Amino acid sequence: MENWIKGNLSNKDIVLSSRIRLARNIKDIKFPHNLDEDKSKEVIDIVENAFYYSSDIKHNYKSIRLWENDSITNRTYLEKHLISNKLLINNKKSAFILNNEETISLMINEEDHIRLQCITAGLNLGEAYNIANKLDDLLEENLKYAFDEKLGYITACPTNIGTGMRASVMLHLPTLTINNQIGEVLNVLSQVGMTMRGLYGEGSKTIGRIYQISNQLSLGLSEEEIINNLKAVVNQIINQEKLTRDKLMESHKYEIEDRVYRALGILKSAVLIDSFEVLTLLSDVRLGVEMGMINNVDKSIMNTLLLDTQTATLQKTYKDKLTEKEIQFNRAKLVREKLNSIN
Amino acid sequence: MENWIKGNLSNKDIVLSSRIRLARNIKDIKFPHNLDEDKSKEVIDIVENAFYYSSDIKHNYKSIRLWENDSITNRTYLEKHLISNKLLINNKKSAFILNNEETISLMINEEDHIRLQCITAGLNLGEAYNIANKLDDLLEENLKYAFDEKLGYITACPTNIGTGMRASVMLHLPTLTINNQIGEVLNVLSQVGMTMRGLYGEGSKTIGRIYQISNQLSLGLSEEEIINNLKAVVNQIINQEKLTRDKLMESHKYEIEDRVYRALGILKSAVLIDSFEVLTLLSDVRLGVEMGMINNVDKSIMNTLLLDTQTATLQKTYKDKLTEKEIQFNRAKLVREKLNSIN
Repeated sequence: MENWIKGNLSNKDIVLSSRIRLARNIKDIKFPHNLDEDKSKEVIDIVENAFYYSSDIKHNYKSIRLWENDSITNRTYLEKHLISNKLLINNKKSAFILNNEETISLMINEEDHIRLQCITAGLNLGEAYNIANKLDDLLEENLKYAFDEKLGYITACPTNIGTGMRASVMLHLPTLTINNQIGEVLNVLSQVGMTMRGLYGEGSKTIGRIYQISNQLSLGLSEEEIINNLKAVVNQIINQEKLTRDKLMESHKYEIEDRVYRALGILKSAVLIDSFEVLTLLSDVRLGVEMGMINNVDKSIMNTLLLDTQTATLQKTYKDKLTEKEIQFNRAKLVREKLNSIN
Repeated sequence: MENWIKGNLSNKDIVLSSRIRLARNIKDIKFPHNLDEDKSKEVIDIVENAFYYSSDIKHNYKSIRLWENDSITNRTYLEKHLISNKLLINNKKSAFILNNEETISLMINEEDHIRLQCITAGLNLGEAYNIANKLDDLLEENLKYAFDEKLGYITACPTNIGTGMRASVMLHLPTLTINNQIGEVLNVLSQVGMTMRGLYGEGSKTIGRIYQISNQLSLGLSEEEIINNLKAVVNQIINQEKLTRDKLMESHKYEIEDRVYRALGILKSAVLIDSFEVLTLLSDVRLGVEMGMINNVDKSIMNTLLLDTQTATLQKTYKDKLTEKEIQFNRAKLVREKLNSIN
C-alpha cells in the first residue's frame, strides 16, 4: 500500500485516500469501556502477542502506548488519521501498533478491543481490504474473536456488528461545496446506506472541503458488496464534482481562476494563518492543481501541507508551548517557505 | 513643480500631493451657471487669449474643450485630479488648459470662470502657491477680475469669496482609518476651519484610506496664513498617523505585516479586482512601502497604479466598451504584470 500523504497520485485525482477498518473483539473479555486500566493493559498484551507472533513482520512495526506520550504527540497521530478520537480519549488504557509506512494502524482499546485500519492512496479499497484481511487472519491464528454464527463479529456498537467493517473514501469536493450541492449528495448517500463526514471523522465539521464517505451498516452485506457499493457511489460523486467543475469553468472561468491564484498568492505571502483558513486556501489551490491551472505543485505537497499545518503537528516541532498567535505565525511560515521553494 | 504621480518622493512620505486652487471671475460677465453655451465659449476665448498672450509659455500648454471629447476621455482627467466633477458636468461649455507635466490645470467655466490649480508632489504648498500666484498675475495683465476692495475676489459660492484660494494636501492615513480615529481628526479639523474629503473631492467616499485636507474658508485670512495653518495641521496629523503606526508595530507587528504582505500577494495573483478593493489593497501595500517592509516598490509605482486602475483610465486603453467583468479582469492583469515585473 502507498502512503496517501506522500503517494504519487495523479494531480487530477479527486480521491485522497481509501480506508478499510475492521472492528474485532476478543471472546470472553468485556468491551473496553467496561475494563479498568489493568485489565485493559492485559488486552494490549494479548493483542500485541498475537500480532507479533509471526516474527517476520515484527521489524516493520512499532507499538505506541498512549499513556506514555504527552498529549501533543498523541494528537499528531490523530491529525494524521492514524488513530481515532475515541482512542485518544481512552489514552490511559489504549495503544496502537503502527507500520513504518504509516499505512496500517491497529488500535487497541478503542470502542472495541481491536480496530484494524489500512489506509492507502487514491481510490483503492480492494488493496486496502486485502491487506486488512491478511492481518485479520494472522491475528485470528492466535486469538479467539467474539463471533456469532448468525450475526457475525460482535462489536460494542450495534452498527458495527456483522462484518465489523467500515470502508471509507476521502474526497475533495470543492465545487460541490461552493455550489451548495453537498446537501443533495448527503440525501442520496443516506438513501443507499452510506454516510458522509468531515476531514476528522464523526461529528467533525466539514473543513477544507474534504469529506469521508463510508458505509453506515456492516450487517447483511458481504465485505465485497460493501466495497463495490461504496466504489460505485464514490465514482458517481466524482463525476458530479467533475461535471460541476466543467460547468463552472464555462460560466465562471475568471472567478475560479481568481479564487485559485489568490489562494496561492495568500499562502505564499501571509504572516498569520489560522487552522480553518489554511484548509480553505489549500482546498482552493488543490482545485487549481486538480484542474491543471497550477502545474508545479504536486499532490504530495498539498497533502503534506494539509497535515503539517494542523495545530498539534505544528506545536510538536517546538519545545515550548506556543501561543495561538505563535502557532498562526509558524503555520504561515511553514506554508510560505514550502510554496516559495518550488520552482 | 514635480508631478505628484511620477515624483520621486521619499518612501516614508505620508503626503502624496499639495494643491493650490484659485477661483477667479471676469468682471461684468455673469457666473458660468447663468451663461448659455455661446456666451460660455466666449469666456473660454477670453481666458485662453489672456493666458496665451505671453508667447513664451505657449508651447508647454494645450487647451482641451470637454465637448470635443468622449465621456471616457474626460473622466480620465477627473481620475487624475486634473479637472473637477463640476467641470465634467458642464462639459457642453467647459474647457481647461493643461501643461505638459500635468501639474497645472486652468479650468474654464467650472463654478467660476477660472479655477486655476497647481498640484505638486509631497508637502510643498509654498511652491504650488508661488506658481499659481505668477500665473494669476499673468492672467490679470490681460483680464479684469471681479474684485471688491473690502471682500476680495468675488466668486459664485460665498465660501470662496476673499482670497478665492483653497489649499489642500492629499495624505495616506491607513492606521488612523483602521483604528477608527478618522472621526477624531475630522472633529479637530472642523474646529480650526479645515475640512477633510476623500480621494475624489467633495462628497466622495473615503476610499483607499487617502484623504484631502483643505481650508474651509478663504475670507479674513491672507494666503500665507491659510497655507501656514494648513501646513501646521497637516504636520500634526502626520505625527498622529506615525504614532499610531509605531504603536501598532509594537502591539500588532505580525498582524500589520500579515495585512501588508497578503495585499501584495493578492495584487500579484488575483484575476479579478473591483475598483474599491484595489484601492484598499494598494493602501495596504503603500503602508508597507512607507514603513520600510517593502523595499523594491517605490512611491511612483504606487501612485501610477492608484490612477491606472481607475475605471475610465482602464477603459480608455480599449476601443470597445468593456463589461464590468472585463474591466475587473484588465485591472487585475495590469496590477499583476506591473508588480511581478519588479525585482
